[in-house]
Parts: sequence; structure tokens; C-alpha cells
Amino acid sequence: MPANPDGLTENLRYLDDLHVGERFITATHILDAAQIMAFANQFDPQQFHLDELAAQRTLFGGLAASGWHTAGLSMKLLVNGPLRLINGVIGTSVEVSWPQPTRPTDVIHVEGEIIEIMPSRSKPTGIVTLRSETLNQHGKVLQKMVAKLVVQRHPDAANTAVSGTAAPRLG
Amino acid sequence: MPANPDGLTENLRYLDDLHVGERFITATHILDAAQIMAFANQFDPQQFHLDELAAQRTLFGGLAASGWHTAGLSMKLLVNGPLRLINGVIGTSVEVSWPQPTRPTDVIHVEGEIIEIMPSRSKPTGIVTLRSETLNQHGKVLQKMVAKLVVQRHPDAANTAVSGTAAPRLG
Repeated sequence: MPANPDGLTENLRYLDDLHVGERFITATHILDAAQIMAFANQFDPQQFHLDELAAQRTLFGGLAASGWHTAGLSMKLLVNGPLRLINGVIGTSVEVSWPQPTRPTDVIHVEGEIIEIMPSRSKPTGIVTLRSETLNQHGKVLQKMVAKLVVQRHPDAANTAVSGTAAPRLG
Repeated sequence: MPANPDGLTENLRYLDDLHVGERFITATHILDAAQIMAFANQFDPQQFHLDELAAQRTLFGGLAASGWHTAGLSMKLLVNGPLRLINGVIGTSVEVSWPQPTRPTDVIHVEGEIIEIMPSRSKPTGIVTLRSETLNQHGKVLQKMVAKLVVQRHPDAANTAVSGTAAPRLG
């Protein structure tokens, strides 16, 4: 079933429709202090995410978003972005780093690239490795991520895989 | 400055107060469908996180929390938990996997262990590697994480490090 927000199956892509090296850029999200503090209240209640004055006396030197907030916003941008997968964006594992803090004045977007596609040997799915960066309006990298996504194969291609004639595959 | 929610410096710990092999268990968080859908609306708007009926027809087979929601809740439990660090819980990078979905009926907690402590060679801080699992009330592992945290050294110990007589250190 299609998992994209608008429920349309048009332009939704199977594993077999993707290629290594494919790149995309998402829309932007405009941050502010209220969003940073609202997220922190729920998920990361620490003073450098909650209080501008107190934050100035911490390692951050001023109010900064929780890394998990940057990650969540990056996910929203990915889900609503141009990489429209047939079964939605389903990650099984990620590596994330935050080279510098996300600030209340940041306008962020995500740039992504597919770096590996591994069809399953036994299932009608595969693992797509997506590398992405979340950048602000000044081109500063706020988050780097490498994510493993589960993506359904096209019914025809999956049948081919079962019969053993497909490209390199993963267990 | 202390970054813990209650603002107390009592029992807050420096890098030099921690030891490899130290373990801890956090309090619990009770999930429900409303929380899962509220998070998804903001950060991961996909039908398997938003709509119980539609979710039944997806790979998840029913409503599931966004992995980023599980991560955010795990962070809240860590921040409010027994590992009370002098400068708060500040991660620079993480590896996260979600072995199985978090469900609306789950009551989750985090179990953590310090697996490495590396004082900086040049700065009065160090990197603590924390391995954690987020489990539900049935002992099922919903999230595995390895996080690198920046932790301040005790002023005395940091001085020692500068003079070159401390234990193994990282640049």
C-alpha cells in the first residue's frame, strides 16, 4: 500500500526503479526558538534547549535544538520530499552525527543520495542505503546521516529474484 | 554549568567520576496511540504512524511509532535518568537500530552501559561511549543505540591531563 501523505500511488517507486548515485533536495523548514523549546520539553529537557540565557553558559553558547529535533525535522522533510517510495520511508538503522548545533534562526533542508541498493535474497524487498546531510541557509552541515531503508521490489522483479536470475543480493 | 532538569549540582558527575562497565536503568514511559499520531503528524507523517486501519495493510501490520519517536522518548528517559552528567547529556553522534516496532500499548524504559571513556588530549572534556537498549514491558528490544557523549572533566583531572600525566587520551 502506498504510504505517502497524499495517498496517491502515482510516481511511487519500487526498489527496482532506484539507482545508486541518485540525488535529491527537499523543501525547507523554518525553525524558531518556540519549536526548539517545545520539542525539548517533551523529549530532551535540558537547559541549553530550553532557556536562551542559561544556554549561553553551556558548551552550546546559546539556545540550540536537540539533535533529535534536527533528526525529526529531517525525517519530515524526507517523507514529504521527492524520493517517493512505494512503501514509504522505513528505516531499520541509522548513523547520525551533528557536526554543529541547529539554531533558532536556521532554515534547514536535506540533501540526499542513494549510495547502495541491495535486493534481498529471500524476500520481495531490499535495503537502500541513503546518505543525507541537513544544512542551514548558510550551507552549514547540521546533521549527517546514513540510513538503511527497507523498500519493496516491483512484483515482476521480485519474481525474477526468486527464480535466481537477479543482480547481487543480500540475505 | 549543570544541565540537569532540577538545576542541582549535587551528584552531577564529571568524566573522571565515570567508569567503564557502569550500568543503569531508567524510569518508564507509557505510550498510547494519540502520542504516536501526534509525533507522526509533526515529524513522520506516514500512514503506518497515523492511521490504525491503514497501518494494518503495511509492512508494520498495525499502528507503530516512528523510530524517531522511540529515539526521542529514549532521550527523555536518559536525560531524566540516573546517569547525571555535569554538563548534561550531549551527543555528538549515534548509531541507532530499531529491531522491532514500538506499539501503542508499550511501556518503555532504557537500560544503559558505559562501554568506553576517552579523555581528550587537548581539551578539558572527553568522549563517553554509551550503549543502550530501549525495551518494552515484555522485555522486547525496540531500539539499540551506541552514542558518543561529550563530558567535562573534573577541573583537577583536566589540569593533570594538560601536564601530560593522565591515562590514554583522544585528540
